[in-house]
Amino acid sequence: MADGEHVLIFDTTLRDGEQSPGATMSHTEKLEIAELLDEMAVDIIEAGFPIASEGDFEAVSEISRLAKSAVICGLARANFQDIDRCWEAVRKARRPRIHTFIGTSPLHRDIPKLSKDEMAKRIHDTVTHARNLCDNVQWSPMDATRTEWDYLARVVEIAIKAGATTINIPDTVGYTAPRESAGLIKRLIQEVPGADEVVFATHCHNDLGMATANALAAVEGGARQIECTINGLGERAGNTALEEVVMAMRVRSDIMPFKTGVDTTKLIHVSRRVATVSGFAVQYNKAIVGKNAFAHESGIHQDGMLKNAKTFEIMRPEDVGLSETSIVMGKHSGRAALRSKLRELGFDPGDNQLNDIFVRFKALADRKKEVFDDDLVALIRDQETGEVNDRIKVKFLRVICGTEAPQSADLILEIDGEETRGTAQGDGPVDATFNAVKKLFPHKARLQLYQVQAVTEGTDAQATVSVRMEEDGLIATGQSADTDTVVASAKAYVNALNRLLVRRQRAGPDADVKQVSYRVTG
Amino acid sequence: MADGEHVLIFDTTLRDGEQSPGATMSHTEKLEIAELLDEMAVDIIEAGFPIASEGDFEAVSEISRLAKSAVICGLARANFQDIDRCWEAVRKARRPRIHTFIGTSPLHRDIPKLSKDEMAKRIHDTVTHARNLCDNVQWSPMDATRTEWDYLARVVEIAIKAGATTINIPDTVGYTAPRESAGLIKRLIQEVPGADEVVFATHCHNDLGMATANALAAVEGGARQIECTINGLGERAGNTALEEVVMAMRVRSDIMPFKTGVDTTKLIHVSRRVATVSGFAVQYNKAIVGKNAFAHESGIHQDGMLKNAKTFEIMRPEDVGLSETSIVMGKHSGRAALRSKLRELGFDPGDNQLNDIFVRFKALADRKKEVFDDDLVALIRDQETGEVNDRIKVKFLRVICGTEAPQSADLILEIDGEETRGTAQGDGPVDATFNAVKKLFPHKARLQLYQVQAVTEGTDAQATVSVRMEEDGLIATGQSADTDTVVASAKAYVNALNRLLVRRQRAGPDADVKQVSYRVTG
Repeated sequence: MADGEHVLIFDTTLRDGEQSPGATMSHTEKLEIAELLDEMAVDIIEAGFPIASEGDFEAVSEISRLAKSAVICGLARANFQDIDRCWEAVRKARRPRIHTFIGTSPLHRDIPKLSKDEMAKRIHDTVTHARNLCDNVQWSPMDATRTEWDYLARVVEIAIKAGATTINIPDTVGYTAPRESAGLIKRLIQEVPGADEVVFATHCHNDLGMATANALAAVEGGARQIECTINGLGERAGNTALEEVVMAMRVRSDIMPFKTGVDTTKLIHVSRRVATVSGFAVQYNKAIVGKNAFAHESGIHQDGMLKNAKTFEIMRPEDVGLSETSIVMGKHSGRAALRSKLRELGFDPGDNQLNDIFVRFKALADRKKEVFDDDLVALIRDQETGEVNDRIKVKFLRVICGTEAPQSADLILEIDGEETRGTAQGDGPVDATFNAVKKLFPHKARLQLYQVQAVTEGTDAQATVSVRMEEDGLIATGQSADTDTVVASAKAYVNALNRLLVRRQRAGPDADVKQVSYRVTG
Repeated sequence: MADGEHVLIFDTTLRDGEQSPGATMSHTEKLEIAELLDEMAVDIIEAGFPIASEGDFEAVSEISRLAKSAVICGLARANFQDIDRCWEAVRKARRPRIHTFIGTSPLHRDIPKLSKDEMAKRIHDTVTHARNLCDNVQWSPMDATRTEWDYLARVVEIAIKAGATTINIPDTVGYTAPRESAGLIKRLIQEVPGADEVVFATHCHNDLGMATANALAAVEGGARQIECTINGLGERAGNTALEEVVMAMRVRSDIMPFKTGVDTTKLIHVSRRVATVSGFAVQYNKAIVGKNAFAHESGIHQDGMLKNAKTFEIMRPEDVGLSETSIVMGKHSGRAALRSKLRELGFDPGDNQLNDIFVRFKALADRKKEVFDDDLVALIRDQETGEVNDRIKVKFLRVICGTEAPQSADLILEIDGEETRGTAQGDGPVDATFNAVKKLFPHKARLQLYQVQAVTEGTDAQATVSVRMEEDGLIATGQSADTDTVVASAKAYVNALNRLLVRRQRAGPDADVKQVSYRVTG
């Protein structure tokens, strides 16, 4: 296995994944995910689309500054302004990359109303410009799988001659099948002059459920970079799932003699963090990272037939970072145990942060018999969401609900340091609570998503609530965890509101660039 | 497209899907899903594993009686008792099938301690026995993809000679890759004597994320039956998703000249029903049936670039039964409008049922500005869950919760016709409520899953709560929908408890057969 050829893992969770309708991550969350990806040793992190918004620019810049080993890549359309802005953001990285693209299929050529020759010239000029700025340039013909072969070969050659170092072949609409995917890359490598001097990449969408197989087929065809996202996040049915291609190449190294640098034992943790910050839960039967992906979780080991784990398992749970023991901590656990447990879970809190978590852990342990890994992660998450500079805080909440209407909420908020109290009614405890927030802090944001997850088993489970709201095109998400669902709901709502206020401030003339360029790439 | 060769769709949602840890469907739910599958025109429905439990036997028998056009298949291990019991259940079907299997890989041969020759004889004897009962017999060498080629070819030949009419090749551990999958079927068809007289089937698991591609590759290799489940439900990472293979063959009929009989416009509805009754939600970025699978849902159509829907869509939402207009009904809508809307959603209530739904719809419309499709489905679902003969009913609930402990619940239950009242405290409103239920009706079931879903957007959304509980190996699930999450939780919990009581009664000496045979096939 270790002898296989290296396949580069290009993670675009923060760019293509973040483009999923509604999956907006905060600045802090993006930095955290980038750090996790860097630690997990993905080769390239596509950190965002710098010209899309001030927020994207800042995130890409900051990730560029902080990344330790990964190449940091930014996206740019086929114009100098986009490319310059991208370079400004990624140049701070130790290993920067500019990724520029244009839609080359007939349907996409029709949008900027460019003739084939005009587009060819545009490609030459923009790739040349990018290469003059940065010696690591990736170029993508968007909708490549629906582009005429002759034209595709022609523009790939132009991009190579203009200095592109990576040629990415996107299956933008998730249209291809494995044999085609392998065949296209193979033919490009065989027929395009200069193809042997660049790395070919594959970027597959999952509309027909074949992104993983298509990406692996492309590698068979000669691609040496796979573009993918954690949990297969991305527009529509999403992208190739990083965890699937990485584990498939590992498990089936006999027929796929390739290797990646990814530390697979971090997969579960990264998957869970991405699920939380994006608000997109992973289904139980998701390959590799779903709750049921490993049978051992379901108590099936007791099955009399299961004499040998290999009978039904082709991967070990620990290979992907799933610890067998989920019951870990109780009220008698000390600070050292907590710290060591948190490290095991992938967190390394400073002393002050540890103190704070410890106090909250103790309070939780008093109420719950068993504190699970997920409870601890929820505690940390809840602490982190507090990092936003909160103008509004929940100080007190008392809700009366049940079968007899009306349900009512009595709420005290602290707004800009001042406490204010109000009551409101509603359909159900959550509606009443949200109405009370609206009464005390009027706003016109619309609730887009309200999601509750009981993070651990048992009635005394902590509930994690995610809230997504939208106001004039700005989207903000909030989360909170509490054993009281209603309290968690109030805090999550207020958390989202605080973030929305920050976004409102930031939203300048650039604010709607993102809308225009929302779905501009593979 | 219409000229392509027919590929049979074998749905095993009710057998392999139902084997997912925790996905236990009630008898009524199984009948409903079978009816939906039959109406959607899948070719074969694997309805269960008759010897596993009395409940499985009853479900398979009843589905056999009710099915209008699909072949009804039951599963049986490689022994006469299993096969006889299976035949007893499916013989009532117009078109019955017996599916018998045995694990043929070295790891699986080791379990019953059979030599190759002994197993070969067992296969001959059991397939012969099945064929003497039924002229439609399917045989599967479990873990075929890890079985030595010579032995696999030998036992497939034996099964064909003994009278099997369908040979299914399971990739039990989700180990294979597309080229292998195609190659194995192709070689079997070329080299095994008699192979041209039977239908070859493919049964793929999704552990490496390639089940769909593997199934389609097998069809390229000559398979003419795909085994699959709705939503890809199934053990671990699940099975091939029915909706993916069916839509892939349709969208890419240019390279896959095959057709199925499936009415794709029913896919979304069946997917949602299976998600609800199994308790396994579908992730947003799931291909075909995920909430985000069609961009048009996310308001992205406003995008200035989107001049032509084909630019980013390879399927039309209506092809899979997604209606563009989700806002449908308000407080002024009448009975006729409700009936026609319900028909559109795939329900055809009788007059009494319609009256009941109408009353509840009006009550809901009074509280909610807009009643969405999903709200109506939730209403119907809630009505259906009431069909279980409920020993316990929630008559009144009043909960006080919030930031100051303790949270308390005041509850009136009707138990076997008699009202009883009690209060309890807990960590959060749900815990307090569940504690109150336990106080009024003591039981030792353990809560395994507590899941809340806000079914539609907006704060006044109905929350659907799913509860799964376990007692001495018996598992029961309950659901309920209400605008008050806490009330929905109480009702879902009591609903699960009622089902558990039914299961307790049924659980005779057969009760743990299912445990033993839990994971016995591909």
